[in-house]
Amino acid sequence: MKLPKQKLTAVAVGLGLALGSASSAWSASLEEVMKERGLTQKDILAAAKTYTPTGGRDEYLMFSSGGQSGQVIVYGVPSMRILKYIGVFTPEPWQGYGFDDESKAVLDQGKVHGKDIIWGDTHHPAFSETDGEYDGKFLFINDKANPRIAMIDLHDFETKQIVVNPFFKSSHGGAFVTPNTEYVMEAAQYAAPFEDEFVPLEQFNDKYRGGVTYWRFDKKEGRIDPENSFTFELPPYSQDLSDAGKEVSYGWGFTNSFCSERYVGGIERGRPPFEAGCSQKDTDFLHITNWKKAEELVKAGKVKKSKGQYLITMEQAIAEELVFLVPEPKSPHGVDVNPKGNRIIVSGKLDSHAWVYSWEKIQDAIKNKKFEGKDPYGLPIIALKDALHTQVQVGLGPLHTQYDAKECVAYTSIYVDSMVTKWDYCEGKVLDQINIHYNVGHLVTMEGDSKSPDGKYLIALNKLAIDRFNPVGPLHPQNHQLIDISGDKMQLLYDMPLPLGEPHYVVGIKADKLKPAVRYKSGTNTRTNKRSEWATRAGREKVERNCDDQGNCQVHVYGTVIRSHITPEIIEVEEGDKVSIHLTNLERAQDETHGFAMYTHNVNLSMEPGKVSSYSFTADKAGVYPYYCTEFCSALHLEMQGYLLVKPKGYKMETGAMAEGQQYTQADYDKQVKTNLDTQAVIDSVVKFITSHNYKDFAPVVALVEDATEQLGFAADMKKKADEAVAKGDYHNATLWAGQWWQYQVKAADIGLRAKTYLEENGAKKVQ
Amino acid sequence: MKLPKQKLTAVAVGLGLALGSASSAWSASLEEVMKERGLTQKDILAAAKTYTPTGGRDEYLMFSSGGQSGQVIVYGVPSMRILKYIGVFTPEPWQGYGFDDESKAVLDQGKVHGKDIIWGDTHHPAFSETDGEYDGKFLFINDKANPRIAMIDLHDFETKQIVVNPFFKSSHGGAFVTPNTEYVMEAAQYAAPFEDEFVPLEQFNDKYRGGVTYWRFDKKEGRIDPENSFTFELPPYSQDLSDAGKEVSYGWGFTNSFCSERYVGGIERGRPPFEAGCSQKDTDFLHITNWKKAEELVKAGKVKKSKGQYLITMEQAIAEELVFLVPEPKSPHGVDVNPKGNRIIVSGKLDSHAWVYSWEKIQDAIKNKKFEGKDPYGLPIIALKDALHTQVQVGLGPLHTQYDAKECVAYTSIYVDSMVTKWDYCEGKVLDQINIHYNVGHLVTMEGDSKSPDGKYLIALNKLAIDRFNPVGPLHPQNHQLIDISGDKMQLLYDMPLPLGEPHYVVGIKADKLKPAVRYKSGTNTRTNKRSEWATRAGREKVERNCDDQGNCQVHVYGTVIRSHITPEIIEVEEGDKVSIHLTNLERAQDETHGFAMYTHNVNLSMEPGKVSSYSFTADKAGVYPYYCTEFCSALHLEMQGYLLVKPKGYKMETGAMAEGQQYTQADYDKQVKTNLDTQAVIDSVVKFITSHNYKDFAPVVALVEDATEQLGFAADMKKKADEAVAKGDYHNATLWAGQWWQYQVKAADIGLRAKTYLEENGAKKVQ
Repeated sequence: MKLPKQKLTAVAVGLGLALGSASSAWSASLEEVMKERGLTQKDILAAAKTYTPTGGRDEYLMFSSGGQSGQVIVYGVPSMRILKYIGVFTPEPWQGYGFDDESKAVLDQGKVHGKDIIWGDTHHPAFSETDGEYDGKFLFINDKANPRIAMIDLHDFETKQIVVNPFFKSSHGGAFVTPNTEYVMEAAQYAAPFEDEFVPLEQFNDKYRGGVTYWRFDKKEGRIDPENSFTFELPPYSQDLSDAGKEVSYGWGFTNSFCSERYVGGIERGRPPFEAGCSQKDTDFLHITNWKKAEELVKAGKVKKSKGQYLITMEQAIAEELVFLVPEPKSPHGVDVNPKGNRIIVSGKLDSHAWVYSWEKIQDAIKNKKFEGKDPYGLPIIALKDALHTQVQVGLGPLHTQYDAKECVAYTSIYVDSMVTKWDYCEGKVLDQINIHYNVGHLVTMEGDSKSPDGKYLIALNKLAIDRFNPVGPLHPQNHQLIDISGDKMQLLYDMPLPLGEPHYVVGIKADKLKPAVRYKSGTNTRTNKRSEWATRAGREKVERNCDDQGNCQVHVYGTVIRSHITPEIIEVEEGDKVSIHLTNLERAQDETHGFAMYTHNVNLSMEPGKVSSYSFTADKAGVYPYYCTEFCSALHLEMQGYLLVKPKGYKMETGAMAEGQQYTQADYDKQVKTNLDTQAVIDSVVKFITSHNYKDFAPVVALVEDATEQLGFAADMKKKADEAVAKGDYHNATLWAGQWWQYQVKAADIGLRAKTYLEENGAKKVQ
Repeated sequence: MKLPKQKLTAVAVGLGLALGSASSAWSASLEEVMKERGLTQKDILAAAKTYTPTGGRDEYLMFSSGGQSGQVIVYGVPSMRILKYIGVFTPEPWQGYGFDDESKAVLDQGKVHGKDIIWGDTHHPAFSETDGEYDGKFLFINDKANPRIAMIDLHDFETKQIVVNPFFKSSHGGAFVTPNTEYVMEAAQYAAPFEDEFVPLEQFNDKYRGGVTYWRFDKKEGRIDPENSFTFELPPYSQDLSDAGKEVSYGWGFTNSFCSERYVGGIERGRPPFEAGCSQKDTDFLHITNWKKAEELVKAGKVKKSKGQYLITMEQAIAEELVFLVPEPKSPHGVDVNPKGNRIIVSGKLDSHAWVYSWEKIQDAIKNKKFEGKDPYGLPIIALKDALHTQVQVGLGPLHTQYDAKECVAYTSIYVDSMVTKWDYCEGKVLDQINIHYNVGHLVTMEGDSKSPDGKYLIALNKLAIDRFNPVGPLHPQNHQLIDISGDKMQLLYDMPLPLGEPHYVVGIKADKLKPAVRYKSGTNTRTNKRSEWATRAGREKVERNCDDQGNCQVHVYGTVIRSHITPEIIEVEEGDKVSIHLTNLERAQDETHGFAMYTHNVNLSMEPGKVSSYSFTADKAGVYPYYCTEFCSALHLEMQGYLLVKPKGYKMETGAMAEGQQYTQADYDKQVKTNLDTQAVIDSVVKFITSHNYKDFAPVVALVEDATEQLGFAADMKKKADEAVAKGDYHNATLWAGQWWQYQVKAADIGLRAKTYLEENGAKKVQ
């Protein structure tokens, strides 16, 4: 086997700097660019560590909350390029999310007290886990404003389910999963009555409550199972973030809190504000919950249901020894269990120390009922000295900790100091610190809260960007900074602006654990993952109109979309009809999405290959409504159009056929056929190029060849129609069908040329 | 003046490769990274040309349509980092867009026939111009689905106005501006009756119409002026993109079209689809409109009004010689006037040639009434030979052309061939070609449609990404490819995924032409740019409740937000009250945005410094509704909370004061004061560091010092309150006020530390 000369050169160039003259010229150019752009050698190294050339792949994919955007953001590491915003709690028209009937059904699950909430305050994403490792199957995320959890299927990166917490009225601390995704944890935040009634603040201590919900997850169905979920009622302490125990602490959950002072503000009445009263004590409470034992009680029928879920009252929790408290540094933000599950780290934003708890000590205290007392609600409190491993001074405003691949090494975000501290939580010493820009909230290391963190990279999720980027008005982007943690010293690599939303937390997974689909089985309702009852095959398109005795009519349009037409192209209904348009994307080719929009109708559908999307409305006004494909899908995309005609009730069509704007003759037909034969010659030459190379070794090219072959099949069908028209002497329609034959040739040529380029750029070899 | 040693080293390192041993070590590391990541020397050069280190600035800012996302996307060149998504036609909660009363008023302008349309299909952004140059003041963008134009003020990157076209039912071809932004052009696309009534397709030729609207723009007011705008009625030809003449062709507009066949599809009835019938003729029509003369007729009162705008009928246009047609290659996409205004380039996606028209020839033909005939509607047609300068074979599927800084050099996107062609339109020859990935739609060069293009960079807006990025499900990101056009040969530098939306066109402006604000004048309604009637100053917060005779009550909350509390913290209303909460952000510090969300209320406000946002609702259900700040604004952000209490109608409060969760003593007070004094010592040391350096030379540090000084002022106020409580022997409240005094110290310390780091990282000098 011989490599072609071109390929050899490429390989040689790839070997680096030590290759003589060509290389020196390169060094000189590099130097010139560095000078011109004011780049240092350190910058070039950072560039080399992050730059990803065309077609390159990222090693990790990050899934970030979008904060108030209500979305999930996906980006790659180390390139720091944002790949997708996934609609979760907020409708998003590009994806058709909240615009097609199928996804509206998902958003409708998220109604609170029957009210539409068309946004969410997403905070903490969590991957599904198997045996404490990310398994790349599902992602969960919470809404703080209206306590909800959403589930995204990583098979297609679509939101499939939203569940509403029946008890809480606020929930910052979700979502966190147990090591086999048995449960998704969600804690209350601002205390409120569990009832949906007015309760005066005077009864705060007695009637306002906090809690933590363990949402049962059915891995097989890929759905949260609310009926088998349970909630711990807890004191009104503003429960916050959680983490599930793992390995030795498997079966337990940890939830921290702030404002255990139970202070109620009222600055308008001359009282000190919440921020003062909620941070006055030196400590808050870490809540330790035994979910494994609670689950057994639930299974044994020993827990009562309330609002459709199991509710474990404080009384029951105390009696069954399910919940324990330990003092923790005040106003903490994050509780983080180490990979082995025997250390739990909590930092308080108003204490410069990270506190490391020992699981062995905590277990001892629980076993020996060694408590320093009870809180006002009767929950047992473990003394700090009976739980603490060590306290380490990590900086001003420590917030969130993640773990390295190296044992005992952790990274903590330092909010007030605007730093990340690398430290040893076994020995209790600081190893390194790096400045970030500015005021870091959460941070993340690769697979950093799993059983086996990867280390390598760390991202600081900064809350302020201030002067880091070109100014874009008073509302600034966020700034995620990528830091290389592979060596002893941390190195800043990249500043990534976040253009939409305020991410709070992000989780990162090795990209090769994800195997997303590129197309759906034809006719899929992608929100249920089942075949749609409205799926339509090519040639089976139809419009059904059924009216009841009162003359109320329902129209169902069974339609399809394919390069470059919507079938049907004309839809006629009567004023007052209820209409549902169902469209199946017939494409199989990767990235061949079609859209659908219509004048004065608040609709955009996004139909990826195989997907069925529906749009239902009442035709409430007679008129003419152009519709069209909203995705630039092909050369004749603009011509992918149609008309909805809403006729006035009882309208009688005047006679008179449509006057064609243009008439075609035999000469036109002959000219078109000549064009088609010329085009076929071009196609043949492209086919010859492809088949004379080892194209079967390139999966993307094989897919393109399949697509092109299909288009040529369509072309042949059109040629038949043209021939039939010629046989009838109808040169007008023969010309038009021959035109359509040519359109399919153009599509085939387009695909073929892409395949040819791919082969040329990827070093395909000539075969005989 | 001496540079500190650290600074000198940095300068030396910046000089590049030829510095001996340190440098060799660097080369070795670089080589290692290249090997590990499989990067070629070409890749490193591309990385060096695009990588932008922390705090670096981009040379150009790009403003891209978001397609079906209904937004505008802002990104930097050459870093290709996305800086902002601007909400335009689609509500976006992170920005509060469509959630606060002020922005709802903007979206309400975009209602069509009284219907809410909460998305848009944005296509072509256009900068405002002065004398044919981008002036960086305003941006316009169209909605194709519901013909509308939106205007974004580049002072703050916010959408301020939406206008609805009264005639069209579809509009792909907008927005394009005349050289002094006298007008914004918007053409119809899919022909439809101008009336909002049912008209059968049989009357397509007679009653369906196209057109082009010239929206008058009032530069002083910064608003489109619909009443002084005019529309040309045109034949039902699917008018498409436009460009305004400039220099020698100033006063004229150019609009192309497709489907001048006036074909009406009907594949469901056995007819060939639109795509065949709309591309059957070899040519469509370029429309040439004389807007300067039309404007004179309007001003002279010679044009009739219809639907609130001036409508120039075809009859009048023919009589007054305002509109002319010239054949153009079929199914074109873009008409592009060169910088001098004497050449007009049109390419048809089904013709491999770009056609270059000569303005001198066209003018001659018009002057001499040299026409080859009339179209079916009586519009004069100039023969191709009397208008054409040359035709150049640029590739299969040419689409859009932009210009280089070098005279006669143009770049055309080639859709079917997936290429960009660089060519000379004077001499008519191809200069270079480069492959893109894949199927490029529009392209853009820097300031490439202005009077003086900058050249330097080109971006290919590819419609398909297929295999370029890590897979993220069936719906793919788009791919914008950055190409270096500074040399003779084009060089691909970067692939940027677009994570949300499908951009159709993007315009790029030199970044230093933009001078966006970082804050608002305190108390601003940012959508009107005027002082809000609800603006509230610190200490003037109040709640007003007024009831009418029927007992219907209206509550207005005049509130404020600042690090870290919302005033008021408790709002009490009665079931049935109409409530408006108005919040003024009191901050002056850059990037100190606060948010506002409330349980079961579909609201998120985004209040940048100085902004007033309002949220109005009916308190329709008694209950407890926590609210909070949604932007992580400070260490005690989570404590920035409050409660809306909706009391049942006629509810009488039981007696009984609130039981405090925690009581504080003199010992607590003394402890807090000690903490505060210790903290003050830290602050003093930071202040000493700052003032002992030349901090006044660093604008960002001066701003931080101002902010910190303000926080220390607040701290002093709190100390006073604590002292007052002590004087009364009220150690409980004295402790809480002392706690709040400390909170302000923490905020000051946070800011001070940021300032110190900035000085350290930016080579500040010790003074004396």
